[in-house]
Amino acid sequence: MDFKISQIAHILNAKVEGNSDQTVNNIESIEEAGEGSISFLSNPKYENFIYTTKASAVIVDHKFKPRQKVHTTLIRVDDPYLSFTALLEEYHKMVSFQKTGIEDPSFIGTDSTHGENIYRGAFSYIGSNVTIGNNCKIYPQVYIGDNVTIGDNTILHSGVKIYANCKIGDYCVVHSGAVIGSDGFGFAPQKDSTYKTIPQIGNVVIEDHVDIGANTTIDCATFGSTVIKSGVKLDNLVQIAHNTEIGKNTVIAAQAGISGSTKVGENCVLAGQSGIVGHLKIGDQITIAAQSGISKNISKKGSIMLGSPAFELADYKKSYVVFKRLPDLMNRIKELEQKILNLPT
Amino acid sequence: MDFKISQIAHILNAKVEGNSDQTVNNIESIEEAGEGSISFLSNPKYENFIYTTKASAVIVDHKFKPRQKVHTTLIRVDDPYLSFTALLEEYHKMVSFQKTGIEDPSFIGTDSTHGENIYRGAFSYIGSNVTIGNNCKIYPQVYIGDNVTIGDNTILHSGVKIYANCKIGDYCVVHSGAVIGSDGFGFAPQKDSTYKTIPQIGNVVIEDHVDIGANTTIDCATFGSTVIKSGVKLDNLVQIAHNTEIGKNTVIAAQAGISGSTKVGENCVLAGQSGIVGHLKIGDQITIAAQSGISKNISKKGSIMLGSPAFELADYKKSYVVFKRLPDLMNRIKELEQKILNLPT
Amino acid sequence: MDFKISQIAHILNAKVEGNSDQTVNNIESIEEAGEGSISFLSNPKYENFIYTTKASAVIVDHKFKPRQKVHTTLIRVDDPYLSFTALLEEYHKMVSFQKTGIEDPSFIGTDSTHGENIYRGAFSYIGSNVTIGNNCKIYPQVYIGDNVTIGDNTILHSGVKIYANCKIGDYCVVHSGAVIGSDGFGFAPQKDSTYKTIPQIGNVVIEDHVDIGANTTIDCATFGSTVIKSGVKLDNLVQIAHNTEIGKNTVIAAQAGISGSTKVGENCVLAGQSGIVGHLKIGDQITIAAQSGISKNISKKGSIMLGSPAFELADYKKSYVVFKRLPDLMNRIKELEQKILNLPT
Repeated sequence: MDFKISQIAHILNAKVEGNSDQTVNNIESIEEAGEGSISFLSNPKYENFIYTTKASAVIVDHKFKPRQKVHTTLIRVDDPYLSFTALLEEYHKMVSFQKTGIEDPSFIGTDSTHGENIYRGAFSYIGSNVTIGNNCKIYPQVYIGDNVTIGDNTILHSGVKIYANCKIGDYCVVHSGAVIGSDGFGFAPQKDSTYKTIPQIGNVVIEDHVDIGANTTIDCATFGSTVIKSGVKLDNLVQIAHNTEIGKNTVIAAQAGISGSTKVGENCVLAGQSGIVGHLKIGDQITIAAQSGISKNISKKGSIMLGSPAFELADYKKSYVVFKRLPDLMNRIKELEQKILNLPT
Repeated sequence: MDFKISQIAHILNAKVEGNSDQTVNNIESIEEAGEGSISFLSNPKYENFIYTTKASAVIVDHKFKPRQKVHTTLIRVDDPYLSFTALLEEYHKMVSFQKTGIEDPSFIGTDSTHGENIYRGAFSYIGSNVTIGNNCKIYPQVYIGDNVTIGDNTILHSGVKIYANCKIGDYCVVHSGAVIGSDGFGFAPQKDSTYKTIPQIGNVVIEDHVDIGANTTIDCATFGSTVIKSGVKLDNLVQIAHNTEIGKNTVIAAQAGISGSTKVGENCVLAGQSGIVGHLKIGDQITIAAQSGISKNISKKGSIMLGSPAFELADYKKSYVVFKRLPDLMNRIKELEQKILNLPT
Repeated sequence: MDFKISQIAHILNAKVEGNSDQTVNNIESIEEAGEGSISFLSNPKYENFIYTTKASAVIVDHKFKPRQKVHTTLIRVDDPYLSFTALLEEYHKMVSFQKTGIEDPSFIGTDSTHGENIYRGAFSYIGSNVTIGNNCKIYPQVYIGDNVTIGDNTILHSGVKIYANCKIGDYCVVHSGAVIGSDGFGFAPQKDSTYKTIPQIGNVVIEDHVDIGANTTIDCATFGSTVIKSGVKLDNLVQIAHNTEIGKNTVIAAQAGISGSTKVGENCVLAGQSGIVGHLKIGDQITIAAQSGISKNISKKGSIMLGSPAFELADYKKSYVVFKRLPDLMNRIKELEQKILNLPT
């Protein structure tokens, strides 16, 4: 998509110095920008780049005074960083929501409906009795099982799979390969050493403004619902087991996993490759460090946990410092023993 | 699906107290059940719920005597929990196996056959020379490569990918996004610091009653077979490398990984995010705790391993208790050294 | 595919002893080979198998002198192992590249082109303005977004998803379920405790001879590019975050993860389930042991790191030996304290 600099200036309520008829079609950092790109200068330590940048236009502060000749067009605003992110968002929205219409062949079952301005990519599959809101984007090869409900303005990227009976809210983004509603991992041991599958007949409920990363898996509840509350952000390859509940605005980084029936509070942060065992209760505003494993309830707001099994980060670090010196410690103990032995009796 | 309470009572060989003409269409726990649901009361500590539940019917013991007025229909049986799970299974079977027929468009190559009562979803792909048994459910967007064999009563959920030449048994369930038969990770270092891909021409053999979780990956053998024995249960996002063999009824939780050529015995349990390095032999009935890493053969039946690298759980826990107190230990050693130093000579 | 032994002998410049008109259609190890298979004998300790093998033909050294009667056909060469791998490669190439043509239905957008000898499987999706080179194999259910460029001789297995604007080089292999170009995990915390999505408008650039495992995820850059250099080998379920750069010929094993903006050097080895936090710089020829976590820059060539957080493997092992003996250490300290206490004053 091409934009005239004058159009951008209009959106940003900005003043242009230079050629406002030029077009730009990309957004890049000032050091990497090429021709046709727009960039910004906010931090003074990057000022040097403005004299050499190949960007066609740079957003700068109203107060910025060049110390040398500038070859690019300047777009002057009150706060270059804010204006730049506003532009980024505008651009992203246009790119994300530009697809509309129904590509052929795609499949839709009986009694299924969707709102206005939808995109249904080729080879996407919508089962029976499905309800989809307005402005949704269903990319190619998406699968939506029977009785699923999806709100407005939600994007399902190519290859997302949603099992029957799940519910997804408004303004969600689900990335490619994510699986929502697969069977919970429940098996009852039998006397002959085999396992019997415990039927999983619940669903997954995802509220609004939830982002779900690529190839992340969220299992349905045994019965009832696995619940992902509003504003939750899940990275790639995350595992959310059956009957789990993730509180509002909690952020879970890549390859972390939560076992069955655990409840995680609001505004928690789980770092990459961390794990929580089943049937626990994690309070609000808890941070779990990378690769840490939680095996007990945590209730104290603001706790930061480290280790496997994890305890308070500050304590863990103190222990770990000594861990690194263990061979030395061992020697000092040996020496002490020797000295005691050699004491005159 | 709607069922009359009288139909359910017939299946369970039960006695109905209340309106047996009512219909139910869902199964829920007694505290969460809404109208149209059937539930059960087994544990006496949940008795209070039976006086307030919105369930249309509740399965109870023949001997149950209400202490207050009950508004729901009672279905009296010998063992409410057993009856309930029997019902759950019946329901699940009906839901799982209700799909039949061939949706359009789907693809099937030359010389491929399948048995009776099959479901082949839209956009599913079956290569050439494939054999599929009776009652199989091939959901939309499944890929089955050439020369694959699949037994009876197996379900492949949407988006499952099976590479050429693999074999899958009877009564298996493979969840969305699982990949079976991808190339093993084998590369031979060259003198110029590059790697040459070692061709992987083997396959994966999956026996009967195996469950495979969403987005789990099982690599084919370099040559020969990667083998998953009967009754194995794999959770989501599990990695099984080339030439691995997993023994009967072994259970592997989410995000665990097994490296190439390792053999795991029967009835083992690998907890979440655990890992085993390559070329090892793990005996029968071994348990590996969450996030633990196995770097040596384990032969002792009943071993429980913890840590990375792991050793016996009981020993690990004893060491870990001291690890938490290491800063204190360090101080005590310093004190001892001081005391020794201050001894009268 | 069937080959006459005489054809194989011709390729390998070999001398045949036995029936050179026989056909073979499989390659197996000498102990497992069945009729119709070809195998090899290189290591003398496997010599016994040659007298009992069911292989139709075995590649042996020109100098090999049987001590008993041999029933299989011998193919004599200078170096049996080299000849065998050459054969394996030849076979693999033929299998990998045998598919050609365009299956129906498949989707291709406007202004997209591809070279000669392509395979485009059924239900594959190619967006608009896409350029694909010669000899590429696009398996069923692959998704290629708008403006993607793909070089020559690259294979995308079934269900691979490539987001818009990404670039992939020559001779790459991407396995099923891998996702390339999904949004980086970037969210700006807001005053009301919610997070605002930071638009991710960059792409992923994958150079030549890169292998990418099943269900691996590679996020696009916030802006600019996430870069995977030539010769990199990624195993299954690996996570590569936004703006990461992976140096030439680096090998990353299954379930390892790299956080945003980290640069990894050339010829590194990351073992399974290891992780690197964001914004780090890892030098060349660094090895990171399984399940280890890197939280600091590493520059020393040849370093081997272990632990979470990791330090030099040799040091870690020394500390870990003492860790296992911590309960004993604790007791020895107690004893020392007692002895000091009991000293005559």
